[in-house]
Amino acid sequence: MNSAIEVAIMAAGKGTRMKSSLPKVLQRLAGKPLLDHVLDTVQQLAPRRVAVIVGHQAEAVQQHCAGWLQAQRSQGREPGAFFFPSQMPQLGTGHAVQQAQPHLSPDATVLILSGDVPLTEVDTLRQLVALAGSDALALLTVRLPDPSGYGRIVRAPGGADAAVQAIVEHKDASEAQRAIDEIYSGIMAVPMRHLSGWLGALRNNNAQGEYYLTDVVKMAVEQDIPVKALCIADATQVEGVNSPRQLAQLERACQLRQAHALLDAGVRLADPARFDLRGELDCGEDVDIDVGCVFEGRVQLGSGVRVGAHCVIANAHIASGVQIQPFTHIDGGSQGITVGAGSQIGPFARLRPGAVLGADVHIGNFVEVKNSSLADGAKANHLAYLGDATVGERVNYGAGSITANYDGANKHRTVIEADVHVGSNCVLVAPVTLGAGGTIGGGSTVNKSTPPGALTIARAKPVSFANWKRPSKADKPRT
Amino acid sequence: MNSAIEVAIMAAGKGTRMKSSLPKVLQRLAGKPLLDHVLDTVQQLAPRRVAVIVGHQAEAVQQHCAGWLQAQRSQGREPGAFFFPSQMPQLGTGHAVQQAQPHLSPDATVLILSGDVPLTEVDTLRQLVALAGSDALALLTVRLPDPSGYGRIVRAPGGADAAVQAIVEHKDASEAQRAIDEIYSGIMAVPMRHLSGWLGALRNNNAQGEYYLTDVVKMAVEQDIPVKALCIADATQVEGVNSPRQLAQLERACQLRQAHALLDAGVRLADPARFDLRGELDCGEDVDIDVGCVFEGRVQLGSGVRVGAHCVIANAHIASGVQIQPFTHIDGGSQGITVGAGSQIGPFARLRPGAVLGADVHIGNFVEVKNSSLADGAKANHLAYLGDATVGERVNYGAGSITANYDGANKHRTVIEADVHVGSNCVLVAPVTLGAGGTIGGGSTVNKSTPPGALTIARAKPVSFANWKRPSKADKPRT
Amino acid sequence: MNSAIEVAIMAAGKGTRMKSSLPKVLQRLAGKPLLDHVLDTVQQLAPRRVAVIVGHQAEAVQQHCAGWLQAQRSQGREPGAFFFPSQMPQLGTGHAVQQAQPHLSPDATVLILSGDVPLTEVDTLRQLVALAGSDALALLTVRLPDPSGYGRIVRAPGGADAAVQAIVEHKDASEAQRAIDEIYSGIMAVPMRHLSGWLGALRNNNAQGEYYLTDVVKMAVEQDIPVKALCIADATQVEGVNSPRQLAQLERACQLRQAHALLDAGVRLADPARFDLRGELDCGEDVDIDVGCVFEGRVQLGSGVRVGAHCVIANAHIASGVQIQPFTHIDGGSQGITVGAGSQIGPFARLRPGAVLGADVHIGNFVEVKNSSLADGAKANHLAYLGDATVGERVNYGAGSITANYDGANKHRTVIEADVHVGSNCVLVAPVTLGAGGTIGGGSTVNKSTPPGALTIARAKPVSFANWKRPSKADKPRT
Repeated sequence: MNSAIEVAIMAAGKGTRMKSSLPKVLQRLAGKPLLDHVLDTVQQLAPRRVAVIVGHQAEAVQQHCAGWLQAQRSQGREPGAFFFPSQMPQLGTGHAVQQAQPHLSPDATVLILSGDVPLTEVDTLRQLVALAGSDALALLTVRLPDPSGYGRIVRAPGGADAAVQAIVEHKDASEAQRAIDEIYSGIMAVPMRHLSGWLGALRNNNAQGEYYLTDVVKMAVEQDIPVKALCIADATQVEGVNSPRQLAQLERACQLRQAHALLDAGVRLADPARFDLRGELDCGEDVDIDVGCVFEGRVQLGSGVRVGAHCVIANAHIASGVQIQPFTHIDGGSQGITVGAGSQIGPFARLRPGAVLGADVHIGNFVEVKNSSLADGAKANHLAYLGDATVGERVNYGAGSITANYDGANKHRTVIEADVHVGSNCVLVAPVTLGAGGTIGGGSTVNKSTPPGALTIARAKPVSFANWKRPSKADKPRT
Repeated sequence: MNSAIEVAIMAAGKGTRMKSSLPKVLQRLAGKPLLDHVLDTVQQLAPRRVAVIVGHQAEAVQQHCAGWLQAQRSQGREPGAFFFPSQMPQLGTGHAVQQAQPHLSPDATVLILSGDVPLTEVDTLRQLVALAGSDALALLTVRLPDPSGYGRIVRAPGGADAAVQAIVEHKDASEAQRAIDEIYSGIMAVPMRHLSGWLGALRNNNAQGEYYLTDVVKMAVEQDIPVKALCIADATQVEGVNSPRQLAQLERACQLRQAHALLDAGVRLADPARFDLRGELDCGEDVDIDVGCVFEGRVQLGSGVRVGAHCVIANAHIASGVQIQPFTHIDGGSQGITVGAGSQIGPFARLRPGAVLGADVHIGNFVEVKNSSLADGAKANHLAYLGDATVGERVNYGAGSITANYDGANKHRTVIEADVHVGSNCVLVAPVTLGAGGTIGGGSTVNKSTPPGALTIARAKPVSFANWKRPSKADKPRT
Repeated sequence: MNSAIEVAIMAAGKGTRMKSSLPKVLQRLAGKPLLDHVLDTVQQLAPRRVAVIVGHQAEAVQQHCAGWLQAQRSQGREPGAFFFPSQMPQLGTGHAVQQAQPHLSPDATVLILSGDVPLTEVDTLRQLVALAGSDALALLTVRLPDPSGYGRIVRAPGGADAAVQAIVEHKDASEAQRAIDEIYSGIMAVPMRHLSGWLGALRNNNAQGEYYLTDVVKMAVEQDIPVKALCIADATQVEGVNSPRQLAQLERACQLRQAHALLDAGVRLADPARFDLRGELDCGEDVDIDVGCVFEGRVQLGSGVRVGAHCVIANAHIASGVQIQPFTHIDGGSQGITVGAGSQIGPFARLRPGAVLGADVHIGNFVEVKNSSLADGAKANHLAYLGDATVGERVNYGAGSITANYDGANKHRTVIEADVHVGSNCVLVAPVTLGAGGTIGGGSTVNKSTPPGALTIARAKPVSFANWKRPSKADKPRT
């Protein structure tokens, strides 16, 4: 029988080099706080208990976790019992885990993670926990092309799987040890029944006066408790964030990882290095995404969707065959957006929360749609605003036309029934209903509902004044 | 006398890893199907016969080739006699060429290519054919930093130009052979009089049960027919596409190659890694192209043209001195677009098919021009639509003004004669002509032609109602 | 006592490979001519005299320097005495410095630079001058991974700080010398009292018939004058520009350097490789800049500012907390732009010169603001133009509304007092004043000032014609 997994996450550090008012573990990577990356991974291990060790801006971190917990539970997940031991001041990694000790169970296998190491994969952690089993200390290690500065993994003779004998700090390492390219990642799994005693035995008699968690390796070796190492090739999984430069590097590594996963699933990306996903993107077959596109929140792209260059798309469900031209901005916010099959959007189109588009809808350049539905075949191709409108099938909404949905205090609804043709530069003063099949003459301001099938015009008659002398240029024109 | 060149192109593969409904050889690189890259290169060799070996989705590939042939002929080129032997099922590269055999002439030098290897240069192929001459088997090879997995070229002692003795598959290679970094590319040239016999002698007594074309090397050696290798340094020329990730990598390699060619011709690119060309771009002297620009189809940029950041330009002739501001979208489609010398376009401008702009024309932000001509010095600077319009010299087309060119069924033409000043938010209901030198007052809807030199106004008189109480906010406002 | 610094800058070359009508030293890097990079660095050394050696397009280069000098002086800086010796024809680097010799003082330490090597850091030059002191010839050198083609630095035995014995050209180098990876950069500092004699002794008895400045090293060694080398690690500091490809490479190196400096200062960049700064950017704390943004001129971003993807921002002061959505174009030109705290701008917004926005102003999609002030809380959210307008607090400027500021000859001002609500698609014919608290009905053209607190409407009454038969599609519709 496997012992339960419990997790300690170090999240107390200030992150001075970030030069930010935000705690380091709340800095965002791929649109999500570093800590959430760790929590989302940990959650897949179904841990019994999780101790998030807080310190600097403890309240902000704890509140953030409370929000994360609430979101988990609202989605029917049970993330385990959470505790927030405080580590003030911060006296080293061993000191951090000491604060978590009272919240961890004697029979658990404890996984020790850092809140600023976001990209460890859940399978790696599963393997590490399995390696620890009920008896061993298991270290996650990685080989680096340039290991200088890091603690080296000294193994017994016998090759890459041999038992670990020590972690030797760079400054203490012999020439031969410095040649070792396997280094400790900071992540370990260990049965609590061993760890408890070791934590009590940690001493801070070193230059920094800190309690180092790595000292437990020596204790394990002395007690003949096996020390194993899981060595992975992908350094990205164990990279931490200490500066904006590291955050930016990890952002690109994370984005490239996501881009490669999409490519491998058959999505065609014009440039994997110019693709950003901050959330989740589900794609059908034969989806093409051009350069410079950014996706946020939850986005679904149906089969055959083509997204042109430089589009920003968030929280939207785009059905199959939709063609999105360059410079299109789609953001569904919390309401979401739906674009029906075969629709054509952009360039320079903007869809805002609550836009619900049927099949074969056309939204063209400089057109904004907010909290409005457009039924199948409706078109708004040029310079127009549709806000709080219900637009019927095959409606043609003219260039420059505006729904005046806001009277300065409240928003009102505009209803345009099927087959209406709205001319150019019209103003539809809501609340108003345009009857089916009607036509609104260009330049009309319509503040009363119009009958079906009728032509409605509100227009002054043009008057010409012959030989009109246009103003001449003043001496000092203003620009 | 040189023998005629005939070409066999392998295009039967499914490309399972592409996860696409499109046949692999029709996937696009730099906007053009992979197969078209090969065909366009081959066409420069003036081949007598071309056998495109089809299999998966044979009909789609053959139809596509028919379109390519038609386009060649419409441009006065004679691409040679084409044949489409079918290879079903696919039993290896040797089997593929066996299917082509009936269509190739005994006196020809045959060039064997893959439809998914798009970037081989024509000079490389010319050299390879010359190397084969009338008697030798000529292999195209490349040196790779990491050759593992590929068939190694084993040469006789005597250095880099020595005769080839064998191609040894990676799994069959000795330690010494694995150290060889020269590998076979899959491309060869060979006199048909040799190849015919060899094809008949191929056997499939191997693990995969396939007929390997590379077995001809052994046969040639046994028959004392010289085997030569043309070894090139640029691996990009022989890279094939088997997955979306490879396609993306090759896309970037291809784009960088194009960017470097433009830089070497004197074009200034702000970032060669953020430049995309899917077609042909001709540039005059002192052309500046900022970051993130995409060019498609045929685009000409005259001397001194500056293209701002994040522009998308397709099928357009931009004369010298034109300044294009960021976020400009120009797409001439099949009609094309002309922008006259010294014009200023953008930012956020959109030119659509049939836009014909004279010299010193200004098209400003949020302005769309479609199927319209603007004579020298005309301006439409702000939020406007010009569709199906003929605009005279020095016309000033006001902000928010619209040509109502579509009556719900047909498109009509708007004529704005020279020196007309159209005010803001006007609607010009086509068909209509605004006489030269006239002025249209702001907010006017004009549905009849106006006399030259006149001021024309269609406008209701403003009426003010004092102490007007604006609606107050409802309890539960909708957003 | 230190001797005065005097500088000779080689700026006579044609730069044939640039294929440009612009002299090479005036080509732009990060938005600034190469020569200005050198001059701006030199200026920090407070040189007594600067000789800019001109040749090809001497007049253009000299005029450009005159502009630079004027700008320096207008900012209260005293850039030293400038001279423009002519070098025609160009007979080598030694010949170039010979032309400058009459303008340099016998008691100076002379720093010899190239106008096409833009990124040398001022601290490097300070160290080089200090190394020269009053007696030594000091060479700036760099280690290159691939030094082939460059002149190698041969030092006396004794390690990296040993005296330089010679610069050996690649073609003249022995096998052992070719293994040296330290090369000469082309930059040196030397007391004029030594240099004068050496310049006179230069001979052109070589294959090219040129006078090489590097020959002075041999002379110094012969005269037992110490030759020292300052060896730097960062090759970017000594890279020159000879082709558009090199210019593009250096542009990226320069941009990455700037990006890293901002990251280290705490700015968060979503992708350092997709960030362009051509000027100066000052950022407060917790500034976030998304992918693809371009900054030009002088831009200040207050604390908490977020800049969305693909924005172009020039010459603007953006206060703290401002949120800028994607595809926003802000260019203050010479007038500048101010955006008040907490304002929300974009997406697809354009701010032009003279836009002065108060706190909490909203400028939404497809809105253009030029030479206008908007007081606190004013909003223009959709498809609108504000030109030459003074907009009061809390004004709501409706979708599609336009200030008709231009009568075809002159620009006039629109005043919208506090709390006015302007409806949709209005035209405000300037000069006009809308009284405080008033409301303008949608679709109104207002050409006279309106009273405070009133509702003003200029609108024709809608008339409906029942059973209207819309035009039917012609046989051959035009597109």
